[in-house]
Amino acid sequence: MAKGKKKVRIGMIGYKMMGKAHSHAYRDIPFYFDTEVVPVLQAISGRDEQGVRRAAEKMGWASVEMDWHHLVERDDIDVIDIVSPNNTHADIAIAAAKAGKHIICEKPLALSVEQAQHMLDAVNKAGVVHMVCHNYRFAPAVQYAKQLIQQGKLGRIYHVRATFLQDWLMDPGYPLVWRLRKDVSGSGTLGDLGSHIIDLARFLVGEFSEVAGMMETFIKERPLGDMDIHLQGKVESSEKGEVTVDDAASFLARFENGALGVFEVSRFSRGNRAGNRFEINGEKGSVRWDMENMNNLHVYLEEDDPGLKGFRTVNCTEVEHPYGRVYWPAGHIIGYEHTFINLLAEMMRGISKGISPNPNFEDGVRNQMVLEAVERSVCTGKWVNISDVSYR
Amino acid sequence: MAKGKKKVRIGMIGYKMMGKAHSHAYRDIPFYFDTEVVPVLQAISGRDEQGVRRAAEKMGWASVEMDWHHLVERDDIDVIDIVSPNNTHADIAIAAAKAGKHIICEKPLALSVEQAQHMLDAVNKAGVVHMVCHNYRFAPAVQYAKQLIQQGKLGRIYHVRATFLQDWLMDPGYPLVWRLRKDVSGSGTLGDLGSHIIDLARFLVGEFSEVAGMMETFIKERPLGDMDIHLQGKVESSEKGEVTVDDAASFLARFENGALGVFEVSRFSRGNRAGNRFEINGEKGSVRWDMENMNNLHVYLEEDDPGLKGFRTVNCTEVEHPYGRVYWPAGHIIGYEHTFINLLAEMMRGISKGISPNPNFEDGVRNQMVLEAVERSVCTGKWVNISDVSYR
Amino acid sequence: MAKGKKKVRIGMIGYKMMGKAHSHAYRDIPFYFDTEVVPVLQAISGRDEQGVRRAAEKMGWASVEMDWHHLVERDDIDVIDIVSPNNTHADIAIAAAKAGKHIICEKPLALSVEQAQHMLDAVNKAGVVHMVCHNYRFAPAVQYAKQLIQQGKLGRIYHVRATFLQDWLMDPGYPLVWRLRKDVSGSGTLGDLGSHIIDLARFLVGEFSEVAGMMETFIKERPLGDMDIHLQGKVESSEKGEVTVDDAASFLARFENGALGVFEVSRFSRGNRAGNRFEINGEKGSVRWDMENMNNLHVYLEEDDPGLKGFRTVNCTEVEHPYGRVYWPAGHIIGYEHTFINLLAEMMRGISKGISPNPNFEDGVRNQMVLEAVERSVCTGKWVNISDVSYR
Amino acid sequence: MAKGKKKVRIGMIGYKMMGKAHSHAYRDIPFYFDTEVVPVLQAISGRDEQGVRRAAEKMGWASVEMDWHHLVERDDIDVIDIVSPNNTHADIAIAAAKAGKHIICEKPLALSVEQAQHMLDAVNKAGVVHMVCHNYRFAPAVQYAKQLIQQGKLGRIYHVRATFLQDWLMDPGYPLVWRLRKDVSGSGTLGDLGSHIIDLARFLVGEFSEVAGMMETFIKERPLGDMDIHLQGKVESSEKGEVTVDDAASFLARFENGALGVFEVSRFSRGNRAGNRFEINGEKGSVRWDMENMNNLHVYLEEDDPGLKGFRTVNCTEVEHPYGRVYWPAGHIIGYEHTFINLLAEMMRGISKGISPNPNFEDGVRNQMVLEAVERSVCTGKWVNISDVSYR
Repeated sequence: MAKGKKKVRIGMIGYKMMGKAHSHAYRDIPFYFDTEVVPVLQAISGRDEQGVRRAAEKMGWASVEMDWHHLVERDDIDVIDIVSPNNTHADIAIAAAKAGKHIICEKPLALSVEQAQHMLDAVNKAGVVHMVCHNYRFAPAVQYAKQLIQQGKLGRIYHVRATFLQDWLMDPGYPLVWRLRKDVSGSGTLGDLGSHIIDLARFLVGEFSEVAGMMETFIKERPLGDMDIHLQGKVESSEKGEVTVDDAASFLARFENGALGVFEVSRFSRGNRAGNRFEINGEKGSVRWDMENMNNLHVYLEEDDPGLKGFRTVNCTEVEHPYGRVYWPAGHIIGYEHTFINLLAEMMRGISKGISPNPNFEDGVRNQMVLEAVERSVCTGKWVNISDVSYR
Repeated sequence: MAKGKKKVRIGMIGYKMMGKAHSHAYRDIPFYFDTEVVPVLQAISGRDEQGVRRAAEKMGWASVEMDWHHLVERDDIDVIDIVSPNNTHADIAIAAAKAGKHIICEKPLALSVEQAQHMLDAVNKAGVVHMVCHNYRFAPAVQYAKQLIQQGKLGRIYHVRATFLQDWLMDPGYPLVWRLRKDVSGSGTLGDLGSHIIDLARFLVGEFSEVAGMMETFIKERPLGDMDIHLQGKVESSEKGEVTVDDAASFLARFENGALGVFEVSRFSRGNRAGNRFEINGEKGSVRWDMENMNNLHVYLEEDDPGLKGFRTVNCTEVEHPYGRVYWPAGHIIGYEHTFINLLAEMMRGISKGISPNPNFEDGVRNQMVLEAVERSVCTGKWVNISDVSYR
Repeated sequence: MAKGKKKVRIGMIGYKMMGKAHSHAYRDIPFYFDTEVVPVLQAISGRDEQGVRRAAEKMGWASVEMDWHHLVERDDIDVIDIVSPNNTHADIAIAAAKAGKHIICEKPLALSVEQAQHMLDAVNKAGVVHMVCHNYRFAPAVQYAKQLIQQGKLGRIYHVRATFLQDWLMDPGYPLVWRLRKDVSGSGTLGDLGSHIIDLARFLVGEFSEVAGMMETFIKERPLGDMDIHLQGKVESSEKGEVTVDDAASFLARFENGALGVFEVSRFSRGNRAGNRFEINGEKGSVRWDMENMNNLHVYLEEDDPGLKGFRTVNCTEVEHPYGRVYWPAGHIIGYEHTFINLLAEMMRGISKGISPNPNFEDGVRNQMVLEAVERSVCTGKWVNISDVSYR
Repeated sequence: MAKGKKKVRIGMIGYKMMGKAHSHAYRDIPFYFDTEVVPVLQAISGRDEQGVRRAAEKMGWASVEMDWHHLVERDDIDVIDIVSPNNTHADIAIAAAKAGKHIICEKPLALSVEQAQHMLDAVNKAGVVHMVCHNYRFAPAVQYAKQLIQQGKLGRIYHVRATFLQDWLMDPGYPLVWRLRKDVSGSGTLGDLGSHIIDLARFLVGEFSEVAGMMETFIKERPLGDMDIHLQGKVESSEKGEVTVDDAASFLARFENGALGVFEVSRFSRGNRAGNRFEINGEKGSVRWDMENMNNLHVYLEEDDPGLKGFRTVNCTEVEHPYGRVYWPAGHIIGYEHTFINLLAEMMRGISKGISPNPNFEDGVRNQMVLEAVERSVCTGKWVNISDVSYR
């Protein structure tokens, strides 16, 4: 299926849940898309030899490396895909850029605005193609919301409210995984989930102007240990460590275009497994979206006839919808993994054109600025202007 | 239906939409409830003689007054019900208390904490029974949520998020009604809609501890004029006046019990007619409610068997639910007006026992403190502690 | 509120759940509507003196009768409202017609087509105004569906599917109430619930042409005894009696206009309290409705722009909707009882004009013909043409 | 990823929409599952050389054949997968069985019970593994419903109601594709969509006992021509041909265990793209499912505490759910294509064990008997007992 097509050879660092999502997406791209370049699963890298070998075999990677530096240096690698913990992103990306590799990086881009800026400088200097994995943008319903907004169907935007609510962390026996340690993850729920809804808001509404935030860590200490992505049970360990990130965060926001935003993320919202939801209200209409029924966009249009006004449930699987001809006939839904297929297909298109599609490292820096502004606001108890967060 | 029952004679000041809701409720109380005292629609008062006479005849009031002072002084009135604009609440309530009348007052209680406090002092001194009309508390599903929380079914509360979203004000041609003038209404969307969701949060979660807020007036000037409650068209007037209240407000909150809150109200949320909604997440479970489907409470319980966890849609019309035996068999829903019937039935019970049911003027003062704290936070750009808002 | 208005004096026979619904509606009509004639709750009749007196006092009726014959003969009665068991409808209606009274009759109109026809003959001969209480027609969303269909918004109708599902009868300890005895009720679930959805289909789609049905009685014997409308517990009785009606029924149908119908009613559908739902599919659009969220009509219009097609949730509380100016502002929902207020307000309008509004006894006869055709089909195992069911 | 694993080489006949779904599934099986045998995309066959070569390249098949007989005879093929039109199923399957190939066949299995029976005889004689592609069984939520029923959580089943509603055929300009010609497809909407909901009912409720049906062809003639799976526009052809299959069908059913069923399928239900839905009511509980939100199972349990009864929305993506550990963490939904991955993974398991998983050709025959009974009932206007449809 790649006959006569240019192949780009991927080297991926990390191989757990995001590694699985990316690997699957690379495998599916040539099946579903007609991109000019097609990905080849060349090599993955990880520190646990047995784990990385098993992953490579299972997911179809041709070779493995124990040290990411080796991977970055390999001549037979065109793209470095970074799915390792947040504290490794900057070093890897900067090295990869220097080696002239195109780069995909998981979100949040970095541990700080400064670090993100260095990464952006590196890719700009190297002239490589780069993207950040804010995959939810690539749900067809979200892309369609963007189209409606760009076409002016909602008019001036007044409001955005967005949440990303989960509940996997509520058991006090859940261990102190890397996501709960600030030195590794940079921030907690805010960075992990907040960066996603910040990206959606930037994509759909525009640039943030100022924010005021609140954060909380409900459970301050947890047993040391690690978890499998699917496992939800307790880990038996008598030793405990301090949770150094937030369990929940929320913030108010003003946008440059005058819109108002209300954002909330939490890992302590019972019954919410992947409560990634938004509503945007404009002068002429509104849209609502919920990741748990991600194929639907609920659209309200004030121009509808009197008596017939109401949110309509649009199942974004029609040929008129973004990616509507890629998958299945109308009404035959797609899922979470397809957001990655779409995103990485855009990366392939970007590579063939030499253009970094959004969201790229520039978006990553701007996203990081909002995260940092929220954190500062939490510290100071005041509103923080995004432009006051250093960005060169 | 009131044979042998003690009658309490109501004198109502104001007669528009809230007057309609209260009048209807008084008429229905003896039909649905077995309260020891039953209301009599004795007199209503309003300044427009023709309007008030027409309203009295239509709604079944026995007599009319042009001046509320006369109504308050009448010996054949036991209860004063205040449904006139917010800037009249304090004078009327204080006069009514002095005259020894029990008092029902529409929300928000007053224009300021200070005024609300004077009103509370007056009713306390007079020893009369008093309530504030936060009617949404009295939706059976909301009362049931309260029961679940009190029984500990949700455990420790971590989060509350609530909105009250409307869209009736978006047309720039909509006139400068009294609700848009701060001198008459005290505050705008915050006072009108925010006070309702503050009341729901106080009822269900507990007392607020501190808040940080944001407000906006999207349309600064509007044509002078007035509107009928049902009419949604433009008023032709070339003269314009300044809108002195907020079109939208939102705020973050911390509660005394450690819960976090996110609140948003707006009259600029297209497609939302009465978007009064909340979700509360606790250690053991969550509840969701939406006024537009007010009979349903969505309940998530972590104690449910693995594999069977999920929000269940409870139609709160069963005999086990609050007010479940008052109306109709299970599944036969009630509506907006029943929240007033329930509230005023509680007032009748309060009168027969000499106790002021919640929400009463004490609740009104506390509600006003939160409103004032949000306003101060908007002015200062900082978090405001509720205890720093003067309350004697 | 009735000053200067013509009063029509109601005499109601029966006083249980439907008596409550009708009584409440009469009380509310002058409050909400501006009908030229207004109802007066003159007298109710029932065999249990204590029960009927208590009901009269509670619901506001001026007098009582122990024998319905006396009520029918009273000069101070203008309208006879029949809410007694089905086997009494014919005798009462015919006597009332002879006495020149207007008549409201609960559904199903009669025990048989023949009986229904005699009732229709009687009211026609007497020239009185008559209606049958198919209240669900009067939900604003259903009336609005009718408008859309009449305006051709759905085009030619291809399909209707409707259910009325309940679960109150599933406990084998539930007693043998009159509704479960064919001699008193005429038929079981089919007559009780089926007549409602037949009425909705006739109202919205048109006349039935032929049917093929299925019926079942899952529990054949039950303890003797009676039940309160709200109570859902067991009755202790060792004696049992035979259930002589169906617990569930379903039927296929063809309509005169070529539409196809699928209908199902049951009292054995766990989790369905009042599952009165329909979907109608036409050439140009579709509508969906569910009594448990009765304010909403879900409307699909093929004429919507490509990409924006989807069922929209229309909250039928806008001024453009039927009865939209009667109750509350948009988004403030009404409930089950309002279907009766609307129906009986139409009866008042009918009386003032001397016209029998639909659904009237003519509709009752046609409804009974469909019921009888279904029953015959169940007996014969064949399709039955409606015109083969005797209708004079 | 298949290292050391036994490979089974697939030969697929046909390559359009179902060919796409199957091809994708084969590619994904080794990625998601740990089956002992893994599929190899060995060869596909089709009559249009250019089309089949393009499909092979796009979807990753190693070789092509123009004539299915050659494919069936190839030694390097272990499994024949039949996704060609219905009138080819029998010949291919019987030839494949004779050649000792395992067989996957798209639904409906055949054009008649007799043909289906010959196919079953052939596979039984050959001792090969066989399955029919009723993929909807393999939605995790459907599998979970089966578990709940098997565990007795719903108790005795009283009712099943199911629909499969589409609207792609409503445009009179839509061409006379093979699905609309009885000689090629065997039957129309009944065979195409009805066979799916019959399969779901057999899987979840049990064997059918008797049926009574209705069918209709709303548009009798259509332009000659063909369509792309995604295209929804008109074909320009002045020549017309007769539509020889049904546009819509519905039927009542009784099951051997006493349950009652109501079934409806249509391609003329505006707004329904893939309205594959069912509700099952049992003594102790109910389940509801809708393919358009296929990850959710709505479960009602009467054992829930009084006041807390209601349908709960279970997102069947937890580790406790069928296939819950295969894909993504809880709340991260899967889509239509995963039903095929699951089904074909079961086929791989079946091959490794030498057992034909359900639904297999035996199920196909029984399904065909229900289809045929419905058709006979439509012809005779009477109920038809399934056992009266010849099955040897």
